[in-house]
Parts: sequence; structure tokens; C-alpha cells
Amino acid sequence: MSEHIAPLARLIEQFRLLSGIGQKTAQRLAFCVLDFTDEQAAEFAKAILDAKRSIVRCSSCGNYSTGELCSVCADDSRDKSTICVVEDAKTIIALEKVRNYTGLYHVLGGVLSPMNGIGPDKLRIAELVERVTAGGVEEIILATNPTVEGEATALYIARLLASHGVRTTRLAYGVPVGGELEYADEVTLHRAIEGRRNI
Amino acid sequence: MSEHIAPLARLIEQFRLLSGIGQKTAQRLAFCVLDFTDEQAAEFAKAILDAKRSIVRCSSCGNYSTGELCSVCADDSRDKSTICVVEDAKTIIALEKVRNYTGLYHVLGGVLSPMNGIGPDKLRIAELVERVTAGGVEEIILATNPTVEGEATALYIARLLASHGVRTTRLAYGVPVGGELEYADEVTLHRAIEGRRNI
Repeated sequence: MSEHIAPLARLIEQFRLLSGIGQKTAQRLAFCVLDFTDEQAAEFAKAILDAKRSIVRCSSCGNYSTGELCSVCADDSRDKSTICVVEDAKTIIALEKVRNYTGLYHVLGGVLSPMNGIGPDKLRIAELVERVTAGGVEEIILATNPTVEGEATALYIARLLASHGVRTTRLAYGVPVGGELEYADEVTLHRAIEGRRNI
Repeated sequence: MSEHIAPLARLIEQFRLLSGIGQKTAQRLAFCVLDFTDEQAAEFAKAILDAKRSIVRCSSCGNYSTGELCSVCADDSRDKSTICVVEDAKTIIALEKVRNYTGLYHVLGGVLSPMNGIGPDKLRIAELVERVTAGGVEEIILATNPTVEGEATALYIARLLASHGVRTTRLAYGVPVGGELEYADEVTLHRAIEGRRNI
């Protein structure tokens, strides 16, 4: 890093802390900031501090929120009998774009991963059970990622909730819309055939 | 942007202002910031403000600097008879890594581009002529990019300095080291043949 003057080197280091940003990109982004006007730089710094300061987790579902309850939980028109369980809050944004889901969410904050020391106590599973026990919930949609850990976590929760009288479902597997069958992997194709439906 | 809560949407907008950052990447980076600790976020914001506040342009060559003169211009061991003319300060960092150039630099701040209204008066060309007129300069290496505008700018400066008794040179063109001739473009190959040397 000795090729950069100190304040620039520090800024590059900061950009490198962001996921997926390597040395070259960090350098490019730092130069962009130097090309900013003073006002633009101040606004950028303020946006970082503001976001960090004002965004908290929804006390009910764990979604990003600026208040006690997130916009989904606070919305009386949402169907409170269905809870969609996701690994993290970013997934909620993707699901909300679809607009065909009107239930609530529950953020786990990760997936079970014994290899990395992440057991059920490290996730917001107890909070989910609590919400189910409180009553009024009819269906839990397990929308963890279709990975080995995501699968295992979904299975674990499904078993845990089996005795609570709620229906547990999993998102459908299959070939992605717009994709080419030729390039689909075997496991996905296998699941797509298994899950075939009448038309 | 309505899918994001306001402080998050603002942070994403800020990341989008950085060159080469699209909506998806801006979103990913903003989420990274949310995952930061308060201290990390504060440090990131501080690095932006610090860099912007403390980095100025060298009064002589236009390089990034924390003082009146940049580290190159302030270094007495540098060869003051040679000036390497570059489009912007980022190029200096790349050239300094090579370690076989010991002269000074001059940052133009762009290239001539009549289509975009960038004439000689918008670049630091007058400052270059001033440095040459001040005396002691023997060679000007024109290291603008090998693009049409970079070429035109180099030619313009070479003609301008023709009457000042300095030698003007241009970086060698040719096939890049480690590249494959098979994939080199015609113009580069043409220049490489033209510039061939005895071994």
C-alpha cells in the first residue's frame, strides 16, 4: 500500500472491507470519491452514518426497520396467518418485489452450520416458535436458500414445528423461468421432473 | 426504489454515484454497511471525509498530495530534467510501481476532446509550458493513453513544445508482455512491427 498517500490508502482499505471488492475496485472507488465535490463526499459519509444509526431490526420479524415494527409487520392488511421464514432480511426485499405474497416474514439471521459452530441457539428459531405458540399462525413457508445448509435448516424447523399444528411448506424447486434446460444442473432438473404439474 | 426504507434507499443511491456500480452492486454494498459495527461505519465515513479534506493537488505537477508539493516533486533525488505527461493522477500510481522512471510528472487533467468542448484551455497545458519555460527540462515523455484523443493530445503538446528546445518522446507501442500475438489487434501488431528492434 506504500504507493498511496496515507488518507487515500486508508480509504482504499475501507472499500476493501465491503464484500466482493478487491484491491483494484477499491482503488477505483476511492478515486471516484476524490473526484466528488466536498458536498457529495459529505453526503456519502452522512448516508453511511444515517443508515447505520436509523436502521434497526424489527422486534417481531427481524427485518430492517426504522421503528419498533417494520413496514410489513405494521401493515394491518397483511395476512397474519402465514409466516415466510428467510435466512436474512435481504431476501425479504426480493420477495416483496413479487407482490403475490401477502403474509408476514421471519428472519433467521443465518442457517444451521455445525461446522462453523452455528447451532439453533445462534439463529432466531426460538423467536419463531414463540410467534407460532402465540397463536393465529396457520402456515410457515420455509424460504431458506436451496443449499445444503438451507435445506437442513428448513428440515430442522419443519420437525420442530410438527407438533404445533401448523402447516409447513417449502418453495417450489424447478428450472428458473427464462433459463435454458440445456444448461440446468442435474439436481435442479431432477427436482423439476419430480415436481411436475398438470397443465 | 420504494422497496427500500428511506435511509437504505439513500445509501444505495450514494453507492450508485461511484463509477461502475449498478443497482444490484450498490444494494449489496449498502447491506454490507448495515452489517458493519457502529465503529466500522464511523471509520468508513471518516475515511471518506478525511481523504476528501486532506488530499489536494500538487501545485507543481497536479498529482494527489497531502501538502503543497507531492511526494514526487518534493523528492530531491528525482531527475528534474524529465517530465512525464499523463492524463490523470491515477496513471502516476501505475508508473511509480514500475520503479524505472525517476523523473517528474505533469497531470493534464484529461485529454483534448473538441466534441465534448474540452480545448487546450481546459487542460493543464499552460502550466506545462510554464514549467518548460522555467528551464532545466530536457525531455517531455508524452504518456497519454493510446486512444485517438490521447494521441491527438500528445501530438498537440509535441508541436506546442517544438520551439522550446526540449526532446518530446512517446511511450513505445507494441504487444503487451505476456499477451498472445494471436489475440493482438491489427493496429497494435502494425505498431509492433514498425517499432521492431535488434536483439
